[in-house]
Amino acid sequence: MFSFENDYSEGACESVLKALVAVNNEQNTGYGLDKYSIKAGEMIKNLVGNENAAVHFITGGTPCNVTVISLLKSYEAVICVKSGHINVHETGGPEATGHKIIAVEGKDGKILPEEIEEIVLTHPDEHTVKPKMVFISDSTEVGTIYTKAELEAISEVCKKYNLYLYLDGARLGAALMASGNDLTLKDIAALTDIFYIGGTKNGLLLSEAVVILNDDLKENFRYSIKQHCSMLAKGWISGVQFLAVFKDNIYFKNAKNADVMAQALANVFRHFDIPLYIDSPTNQIFPILENSVLEKIQEKYVVSVWGKYDETHTITRFCCSWATKKENIEDFYRDLRTITRG
Amino acid sequence: MFSFENDYSEGACESVLKALVAVNNEQNTGYGLDKYSIKAGEMIKNLVGNENAAVHFITGGTPCNVTVISLLKSYEAVICVKSGHINVHETGGPEATGHKIIAVEGKDGKILPEEIEEIVLTHPDEHTVKPKMVFISDSTEVGTIYTKAELEAISEVCKKYNLYLYLDGARLGAALMASGNDLTLKDIAALTDIFYIGGTKNGLLLSEAVVILNDDLKENFRYSIKQHCSMLAKGWISGVQFLAVFKDNIYFKNAKNADVMAQALANVFRHFDIPLYIDSPTNQIFPILENSVLEKIQEKYVVSVWGKYDETHTITRFCCSWATKKENIEDFYRDLRTITRG
Amino acid sequence: MFSFENDYSEGACESVLKALVAVNNEQNTGYGLDKYSIKAGEMIKNLVGNENAAVHFITGGTPCNVTVISLLKSYEAVICVKSGHINVHETGGPEATGHKIIAVEGKDGKILPEEIEEIVLTHPDEHTVKPKMVFISDSTEVGTIYTKAELEAISEVCKKYNLYLYLDGARLGAALMASGNDLTLKDIAALTDIFYIGGTKNGLLLSEAVVILNDDLKENFRYSIKQHCSMLAKGWISGVQFLAVFKDNIYFKNAKNADVMAQALANVFRHFDIPLYIDSPTNQIFPILENSVLEKIQEKYVVSVWGKYDETHTITRFCCSWATKKENIEDFYRDLRTITRG
Amino acid sequence: MFSFENDYSEGACESVLKALVAVNNEQNTGYGLDKYSIKAGEMIKNLVGNENAAVHFITGGTPCNVTVISLLKSYEAVICVKSGHINVHETGGPEATGHKIIAVEGKDGKILPEEIEEIVLTHPDEHTVKPKMVFISDSTEVGTIYTKAELEAISEVCKKYNLYLYLDGARLGAALMASGNDLTLKDIAALTDIFYIGGTKNGLLLSEAVVILNDDLKENFRYSIKQHCSMLAKGWISGVQFLAVFKDNIYFKNAKNADVMAQALANVFRHFDIPLYIDSPTNQIFPILENSVLEKIQEKYVVSVWGKYDETHTITRFCCSWATKKENIEDFYRDLRTITRG
Repeated sequence: MFSFENDYSEGACESVLKALVAVNNEQNTGYGLDKYSIKAGEMIKNLVGNENAAVHFITGGTPCNVTVISLLKSYEAVICVKSGHINVHETGGPEATGHKIIAVEGKDGKILPEEIEEIVLTHPDEHTVKPKMVFISDSTEVGTIYTKAELEAISEVCKKYNLYLYLDGARLGAALMASGNDLTLKDIAALTDIFYIGGTKNGLLLSEAVVILNDDLKENFRYSIKQHCSMLAKGWISGVQFLAVFKDNIYFKNAKNADVMAQALANVFRHFDIPLYIDSPTNQIFPILENSVLEKIQEKYVVSVWGKYDETHTITRFCCSWATKKENIEDFYRDLRTITRG
Repeated sequence: MFSFENDYSEGACESVLKALVAVNNEQNTGYGLDKYSIKAGEMIKNLVGNENAAVHFITGGTPCNVTVISLLKSYEAVICVKSGHINVHETGGPEATGHKIIAVEGKDGKILPEEIEEIVLTHPDEHTVKPKMVFISDSTEVGTIYTKAELEAISEVCKKYNLYLYLDGARLGAALMASGNDLTLKDIAALTDIFYIGGTKNGLLLSEAVVILNDDLKENFRYSIKQHCSMLAKGWISGVQFLAVFKDNIYFKNAKNADVMAQALANVFRHFDIPLYIDSPTNQIFPILENSVLEKIQEKYVVSVWGKYDETHTITRFCCSWATKKENIEDFYRDLRTITRG
Repeated sequence: MFSFENDYSEGACESVLKALVAVNNEQNTGYGLDKYSIKAGEMIKNLVGNENAAVHFITGGTPCNVTVISLLKSYEAVICVKSGHINVHETGGPEATGHKIIAVEGKDGKILPEEIEEIVLTHPDEHTVKPKMVFISDSTEVGTIYTKAELEAISEVCKKYNLYLYLDGARLGAALMASGNDLTLKDIAALTDIFYIGGTKNGLLLSEAVVILNDDLKENFRYSIKQHCSMLAKGWISGVQFLAVFKDNIYFKNAKNADVMAQALANVFRHFDIPLYIDSPTNQIFPILENSVLEKIQEKYVVSVWGKYDETHTITRFCCSWATKKENIEDFYRDLRTITRG
Repeated sequence: MFSFENDYSEGACESVLKALVAVNNEQNTGYGLDKYSIKAGEMIKNLVGNENAAVHFITGGTPCNVTVISLLKSYEAVICVKSGHINVHETGGPEATGHKIIAVEGKDGKILPEEIEEIVLTHPDEHTVKPKMVFISDSTEVGTIYTKAELEAISEVCKKYNLYLYLDGARLGAALMASGNDLTLKDIAALTDIFYIGGTKNGLLLSEAVVILNDDLKENFRYSIKQHCSMLAKGWISGVQFLAVFKDNIYFKNAKNADVMAQALANVFRHFDIPLYIDSPTNQIFPILENSVLEKIQEKYVVSVWGKYDETHTITRFCCSWATKKENIEDFYRDLRTITRG
């Protein structure tokens, strides 16, 4: 069985693993106050072009989102699209910190500035929650990406209404390396109040790097990390891993490979006239498969079932990662040819 | 200025006020353990036809909803319609107890059984919250009412998926007295797991009566009331008030008056060809007013602005209560005639 | 049976009841935005000598405390004495808003400045909560009162460590009227960041007045009230009641009566050589009774059992209120004489 | 600089590191549902002698405690000693899930059965929280261990009052290998409702194994893990590590080394007549150092400052780990000789 189920099926990429082994027998300060984490933080500040940024490492994506949302006051709420990770796939972790999520329709997995504005205008007083943060993901949960113009428009409406803009970058590498992307890390740092650079889904064993730009969100952030179960005792393994991937651009190479492989896979489906549910330029693609075809694929491959399309078709998700090889795509091509000719 | 803004603009109805004055100088046990509250509880058990029901008095509607939702386990969620009070008008109180609200579209303010089913089926595992409660209001936030057949269908799907059915009866009197209603208190007690009988909006100074039918929700409920700020020190004032309104059917007479007056008001609008946003048989009606007409009405009347209809029209809400008099409607008719002829 | 169980066994004092009846049939704006609440707020600002104070009315004491504590950031904690109401008698309401309470020993129910300092110094970093608020009660849960010098010393240490000082005034009237008191409402307003003036335990049916002095705590306070189930729909009944008791000094007369009656009762116990557990100058006294004496008292009186003293003695609490009459004390004197001579 | 600061200053022990490297390039199912985690779970059930136990892997110690405490109902509370990790060093994480911690004095870091009983008896009704869980650590936060008789007595009182007994085993290896220990993993599984076997502090990079014995706590536990940020995407790294340490008894050998080294270090202090604050048989010892001696030690060693002893002395903590070598102790002996002779 080969798995296209997600982009975290394999362990660490080679340079990360080597770096972890190299420091293993050293003694290091705990809880992320070690020299590697400090150095990785400096490197990231440099990459995002903001020396005043605060950088923190957190165990995973849900931990990032829950910790960031916990910064809000008890009556403040978060706006996001319906398909947003915080709205669907975090088992109510954000609500468990006491905060409402207001979900809007969005378009292609992306929030629209006018949706944000409408939510603000329809939450006028103390009988409703007070919208205070906008949550977006880049790439989104359905693989799409924000353009610079789109992010600027969202940033503008957030500033207008005094909302924090928070970008979930679990798959930020995949977004930045995608065909059609015109955003840079520096743009994101300039346009958001806080975001995170995903590690788990791009070749690290675990760990994400939260980058805080807005001073209001910086104070006592380590208290929030600890309280929300998101701080590692052996915290240096985060710093070590991020140092390893940001050296020699491995982070971006990993992401590029994931994107290229997934787009090759998309072409395989197109070749067999299998429609894609959404036009994603990143490392997740969403073929609509006949149920009988899906069953045959599942004999040799693990894939995600995304939802029912109609009585005879299923929307599926295929993910590629830093570890996916050209041969995996070629094998799949041959297998699908056999199946569809079957 | 006369106010049609809501159904809680006046104090207590006459019999409630008299009863409060009558007991004022007595000494009574605190926190709802007094003889009046016990007797009112017995009377309500009798009214709902379930001697095993548990009855508790709570300060208000949001306190009821927050307390009831707090009974869920931390990862369990509530399903309701978008316009549901818990989703819009409780300042995130339910989320502040850690629980997600999953909002569905509904129809005319009412939830559809198939919506409940779809939410359950799309929340299959530990990466999403676990839907565990369905919240409905009768009458709804837009004045509509559930039929017995509708409530039975919802109850059935709840039983099928092991969901608690919770009915917010802030305006239950208005629902039960409405033209077209075929539900009784006994039906509601038989079809739900927990519901409350609203007092504040039907002639009490404050207080609602929570009725628990499902044994799983009965244990230690008083702990939840106290923890969620919903227990009165001088708790007998709840029991005294409910005893007063359930004597001589005053509760139902109050509600009937509110419905009849509101329907008369609806006819006034129809008479002047002013459309109603939704067809409500209860004590809230929603005329769509030309902005210029609204402005003139607001010179003499307080009404609620419900939302923008289009560039030149506004959806408004007019409420009648136990205290609204025929003369108030007649006066309004004359004023509206003057305005529309203006 | 006559009850000395607490100071909220009777309804409203005469002037409060009259005022409620007088406005009952008026229409008023809901949720505390009515003319009476605004006027009562102005009157209270005047009484506390701070025109910039913000005044809000809340349903009860636990609701006040929970709402105020909910203003803290998620990792911030409250320091109080072990016997503090928030630590013992609120069913974990403050913790349910996510905040730790750090309890210290105190002395005679009062916190010591050095205890506050020690807690701050032993909570130095992000592995512990961050102490941010000091909670005190005046009069305390055991009936004692703070002197001006004591409150100044506490206020000073709070300022030194940037802690909010919050005073629970559920029985503030009893404190201010007590023999030995040298504090005024103006002192309290000058020395604390936020406090409340208790109504329920001093002749109102329900309702307390929160007075916010520190600007940092003022913003959006109504959101917190609503979210924590502490806002009344018919909110004017709070304003009306406070206007009634602050007219003609009835608030202070009520409290004075409670104190004087309780001290007379204390003298009754002293007369029969029955020791008092603590020297309280206010309306709660704590006789240590032989169990057999207690049993006989309980045949005619309701009192609170405070705790076991030793195998043959029980600490009890007797409360007097605005409604306690001289005859009640005289009757009790005669009954106790009979019992102790028995 | 050599660090005795804690037992998590080094990376993974050799066999753990090898095992992680060995599986690194495999594809595995995410979120702890992989074959290694399943196999490790089976191995642990076998070790604890309970085939019906449920075993889950969680990122760290605070995440374990917060997740377990989140299982309680909103008004239920946890009893522990003042020095308990949940009470001091989790930044209010347990309270952030809404639950009160009731701290008792304890003795030598251990809770006494009579303390548990007293808390239950003084929390009788809905005005207080409802004690429902007892939290203990073995070894404790001050290095002491529970005897079998002590654990049996605690277990008995928990059963009597229907309380869950939860044992934090962050340093369980150190406890089980300590001189004087008479408990086994099987005893612990028989006497508690839930406990965890610590990995982070005994040679793993991260991860702890929660063992649930009481059926009431098993249901939907994975929801709680996910919600509380304690689930790893690449969850197999937990299973792989636990498999590695439970093979060939490495888990116990690691712990034994830590204990033996720490006891050798204790003897060094005794040799120089330096008193120990508490008599700990495990891998943490607490010498009381003259401040001048401490300063000189800190020139070459990192140690933890535990608290002030008196004006001229400081309580310190020295930890040994699986990685501490005999030479480290010998070096320290020589350095301390130099310092004390200084």
